[in-house]
Amino acid sequence: MRVALIGTGLIGGSMMLRLKHQGLVDKVYGVDLNGLHLQTALERGIIDEIATLSTLPKDLDLIVVAIPVDAARGLLPELLSSISSTTTVMDVGSTKEALTKSLESHPNRGRFVAFHPMWGTENSGPDSAQLDSFDSRACVICDSQDSDSDALEKIENLAKNLGMSVLYMSAKDHDLHAAYISHISHITSYALANTVLEKEREEDTIFQLASSGFSSTVRLAKSHPDMWVPIFRQNKENVLDVLNEHISQLRKFKSALEKENYELLEELIVNANRIRPILEQD
Amino acid sequence: MRVALIGTGLIGGSMMLRLKHQGLVDKVYGVDLNGLHLQTALERGIIDEIATLSTLPKDLDLIVVAIPVDAARGLLPELLSSISSTTTVMDVGSTKEALTKSLESHPNRGRFVAFHPMWGTENSGPDSAQLDSFDSRACVICDSQDSDSDALEKIENLAKNLGMSVLYMSAKDHDLHAAYISHISHITSYALANTVLEKEREEDTIFQLASSGFSSTVRLAKSHPDMWVPIFRQNKENVLDVLNEHISQLRKFKSALEKENYELLEELIVNANRIRPILEQD
Repeated sequence: MRVALIGTGLIGGSMMLRLKHQGLVDKVYGVDLNGLHLQTALERGIIDEIATLSTLPKDLDLIVVAIPVDAARGLLPELLSSISSTTTVMDVGSTKEALTKSLESHPNRGRFVAFHPMWGTENSGPDSAQLDSFDSRACVICDSQDSDSDALEKIENLAKNLGMSVLYMSAKDHDLHAAYISHISHITSYALANTVLEKEREEDTIFQLASSGFSSTVRLAKSHPDMWVPIFRQNKENVLDVLNEHISQLRKFKSALEKENYELLEELIVNANRIRPILEQD
Repeated sequence: MRVALIGTGLIGGSMMLRLKHQGLVDKVYGVDLNGLHLQTALERGIIDEIATLSTLPKDLDLIVVAIPVDAARGLLPELLSSISSTTTVMDVGSTKEALTKSLESHPNRGRFVAFHPMWGTENSGPDSAQLDSFDSRACVICDSQDSDSDALEKIENLAKNLGMSVLYMSAKDHDLHAAYISHISHITSYALANTVLEKEREEDTIFQLASSGFSSTVRLAKSHPDMWVPIFRQNKENVLDVLNEHISQLRKFKSALEKENYELLEELIVNANRIRPILEQD
């Protein structure tokens, strides 16, 4: 399989490491605006050759678009116009509705598969790429009926080779669920970091007292704005909806404390504890 | 060293596993209201003998009080009245001001050391106890000037044997910093779980889509109310103060999104990113 990787960061890099490790990929052309990333990707064996969009061979089997969602939305219509009829194009972005909408009347829409791996870390760049990142994780394929069957099959096989289970849903449903289960976690984590930085002016105290609990809850606050601003922007309505709910849930804790209603406080905690069996299903 | 462990849960259990592993403890008497916990603690070698408060030997070297902070506050005055002049008593609770205040005029105050290990998990009970829990973590000793020097030295040595670095502060400062760095993380995590449970009615979807990011941010929401309601109650003023700040930080994200002010959104994220170098100091 001859592949182009557009965006040699955490997600695309981890994907190529795995597919190359399995011998499924013969050659990877890497495209990136960041020259240092291209160099690192080359050194780590994520890509085999540095390329540009205009120098990419026309007869590639697969193009993986692994760049921020606003850039992906800008690039994909043009990219789809320039590919051969046997090339499959996939993205790996965290929002899908705006992207699929911008492609819905594209003559080559069928060559595109909207793909979202439910894995990531707070780190970015090819340095952070890991071989077994996707193992046993879920991925979502959106609007699969709009992809050609051979293109869909290629991405389904790719997901299988990454060790992922595939869920199918519409782009609209995907963005709704992603707001609930992924995007809001990033906002709460960013806001928690800002809260602690605002209240705790002694940075050494943060460092010294930070427990595993704090580090875990605030971990996502290290995530890069170049990735996350466009996600929040494209999924604004859903994110605002769940953010409003979250503020209202926090107000319940506030009210329980202010009114010294410790029975209500316990109820709120007991309700939150219900997340344990849901996350720990067999 | 002959020790009594009052409360055979995660913290006390982990502590005894380590101290016994190092051969520093000859015998541990276990006291707990929960008979199953006592049985498990015995089977795991956390304790050597089941006891009750009234059957504990009088000449113990150390009594570790590892029960919820409201219960500790209720028990400690009486316990301190019943010990020999060579016994040291320590607690491991997450709040200190109410406790130390209730002991300030106690004739045996000097035998008590207020101790808080900055480690925990979302799990509780002796089943969850781990041998190397405290390694390379910080602990806080509060109001050390109020402890007898031999009692203080005993707990400092214990901390060293657990692999912990010791910070010293007043009980008042401790509770303030603990609210900022630990207690608020629990509230945000509980509220995030309640938000997702409220918005995402399809539990299977939560399970299937939950990424490592979501699991990490919501992890503390599994924590037991018996431990956390008393902590929030005893540290109400500080927790409310930081909770108000947190709601106001979330409102900034909301406002940036509503007004489509993506420069502000980016600023908020860049500011939050400052947590990375603080948490990753050498």
